[in-house]
Amino acid sequence: MTNQTWSRGLEGVIAGDSTICKIDGQAGKLYYRGYSIEDLAAHSDFEEVVSLLLNDRLPGLAELEEFRARMRGARALHPKILEMIKGFPPEGKPMELLQSVMAYLSGYIEHKIEHSAYCNCRQTLHQVAQLATVTAAWHRFRRGLPDVKPRADLSHGANFLYMLRGEAPDEEEGRIMDTCLLLHAEHGFNASTFTARVVASTVSTCYASVSAAIGALRGPLHGGANERVLAMLEEIGSVEKVEAWVKRALAGKVKIMGMGHRVYKAKDPRSVVMEGFLETLSRTKGDSRHLDMLRKIEALATADFESRGKKIYPNVDFFSGSVYALLGIPTELYTPIFAVARIAGWLAHVLEQRERDNRIFRPASLYSGPDPRPWVPIEKRGNHG
Amino acid sequence: MTNQTWSRGLEGVIAGDSTICKIDGQAGKLYYRGYSIEDLAAHSDFEEVVSLLLNDRLPGLAELEEFRARMRGARALHPKILEMIKGFPPEGKPMELLQSVMAYLSGYIEHKIEHSAYCNCRQTLHQVAQLATVTAAWHRFRRGLPDVKPRADLSHGANFLYMLRGEAPDEEEGRIMDTCLLLHAEHGFNASTFTARVVASTVSTCYASVSAAIGALRGPLHGGANERVLAMLEEIGSVEKVEAWVKRALAGKVKIMGMGHRVYKAKDPRSVVMEGFLETLSRTKGDSRHLDMLRKIEALATADFESRGKKIYPNVDFFSGSVYALLGIPTELYTPIFAVARIAGWLAHVLEQRERDNRIFRPASLYSGPDPRPWVPIEKRGNHG
Repeated sequence: MTNQTWSRGLEGVIAGDSTICKIDGQAGKLYYRGYSIEDLAAHSDFEEVVSLLLNDRLPGLAELEEFRARMRGARALHPKILEMIKGFPPEGKPMELLQSVMAYLSGYIEHKIEHSAYCNCRQTLHQVAQLATVTAAWHRFRRGLPDVKPRADLSHGANFLYMLRGEAPDEEEGRIMDTCLLLHAEHGFNASTFTARVVASTVSTCYASVSAAIGALRGPLHGGANERVLAMLEEIGSVEKVEAWVKRALAGKVKIMGMGHRVYKAKDPRSVVMEGFLETLSRTKGDSRHLDMLRKIEALATADFESRGKKIYPNVDFFSGSVYALLGIPTELYTPIFAVARIAGWLAHVLEQRERDNRIFRPASLYSGPDPRPWVPIEKRGNHG
Repeated sequence: MTNQTWSRGLEGVIAGDSTICKIDGQAGKLYYRGYSIEDLAAHSDFEEVVSLLLNDRLPGLAELEEFRARMRGARALHPKILEMIKGFPPEGKPMELLQSVMAYLSGYIEHKIEHSAYCNCRQTLHQVAQLATVTAAWHRFRRGLPDVKPRADLSHGANFLYMLRGEAPDEEEGRIMDTCLLLHAEHGFNASTFTARVVASTVSTCYASVSAAIGALRGPLHGGANERVLAMLEEIGSVEKVEAWVKRALAGKVKIMGMGHRVYKAKDPRSVVMEGFLETLSRTKGDSRHLDMLRKIEALATADFESRGKKIYPNVDFFSGSVYALLGIPTELYTPIFAVARIAGWLAHVLEQRERDNRIFRPASLYSGPDPRPWVPIEKRGNHG
């Protein structure tokens, strides 16, 4: 029977096996389907990585061209989805809107097939393609601007910036945005991906599974860390104040945002790429305020941690918020952008869950409530109303 | 570190503790907050059970009256939600619509508070109240009928029938429908409730958590069992054919739908109540075709199972589909009705997850994919496209 010891949050408990993502936390290495994140960031782009994640191999030339055409052809939103975005109350939060739209999309394309283990998500690609369009449309509408129709001649990241701004970004900005999406496309069994797998294990649809994952990413214990890094930078104010602030933080055991990771005991490889982007953008835009502060925070904090034998280094969130800020993206879009990217990994996990020895997730629980008790008629319940 | 043995679907693995629901599978007993399902079915109603589940005590008279008024006052849908239902493509499935609407609702009421562990869901109650209205409106619109505004003088179950039909049910039908909701209100850590808890563990909102749970219930390995019982009855055709069919099924190891349960090794206590309802409705409607078939199937199959030492008895789905059928409800609504009821349990679990020693769900996984491999330029990938 059930072992009575258990681990809150399933920490350290194996919930499944997967061929998608390997994280070597000690070495600070991350691989999608065996390819290092450094190689992917240098040589690939978001669309190719989506193809890799969904199909478990790098596409050949014709295959990639066909994949790109299909995914770009799936970017535009149905007029009813645009209405839904426009009609979302102004105080509503974008993550619930994304969650809602993802489930609603199910009515448009896949309704003609029975949702079996083998569905047509790898072919339709609109779930992967449209989150960027939804996010951009929400951003435009709440500013009273018309939405911008997607352009099929731009990469996924460049087109996202184009739809936000209404004008195309330069090549460098487009490549940086696209690679940021690539860096966030997949990262193993975190809470949102695990949510997607639990839902998929009931043989529910891809829409239902991915929509649920968006709900998990919405929580501040999961998404939103890079916003908190920016808030930290605002609090500090300038590079001259970093040293005093870091000393106070280390003495007072205040958490330094964007540093440390459950798995990585070295610098997160994604943060190395992000730092390069921040350096490039700081130079191009003539604004190195964030970069200077972040580098000083990293140097001071890392030296202190290392002197105490602690392996705490920048994670992917340390530099990413500042990269987005220099791309002119407001902070309220940072978690939606995470979803725009991670949809690739979620969908890969949903397909893997259903296609490889699926078993419905139905864990045990410990009952710690009241013993069986007799019914009490309402007039005898005392006056607690 | 991580133990390398693991259990697919987390079977037998404790994922948390809970004070909400106790299932004694050996004895065939079910308790909500310590009160037996038989007592609740006999003396309580859905609204009182929602209050019990959310607040961990039976309400006093004034408290219950106030609770009822609040929940009934929250039944009506915003015009934009009605548009969303009306605009959902006719081929779309109702569970994704429910999932979508639940996330969208977040824009309307709770947007003014920060979503902390202590949110105002116990006060607003619209999430619990409105799924019935959404389901009924979807049912009406797809038949080209106008939606029916809720009536505050009817129980939750009776009002649901009223909104489906456009006319009020008689007292007996209303009480049966309401008690069916009560019987399905909560049942521990199944896949949908577990999904709700995983999402809530990120400190995401109640909307996001409950919407995700609807996505899990949508899967045929979770919801939909009572539809399959009806399909079985249709396949058999009549009571005269039951004996031959059951013999063939037992010989051929064909699964008899609605019998057997992972936890219950006795008759599911909910199925006993359901059987009583089916008996009542069969008499009132003058149609005992399903009841006669089901009783004969149960008698023959149970005798056979017992002779072989197997503890396989009717579960809650065995009689429920036939009860709904005699209430004139089409099968496509059976899983949505499950959601209309279970929302109470989901919300109770979401609140418990956040309020009692929350820890984000982030299980481990085993990597079984390719070893690290070098990047391959596209022209060297072979001709697989």
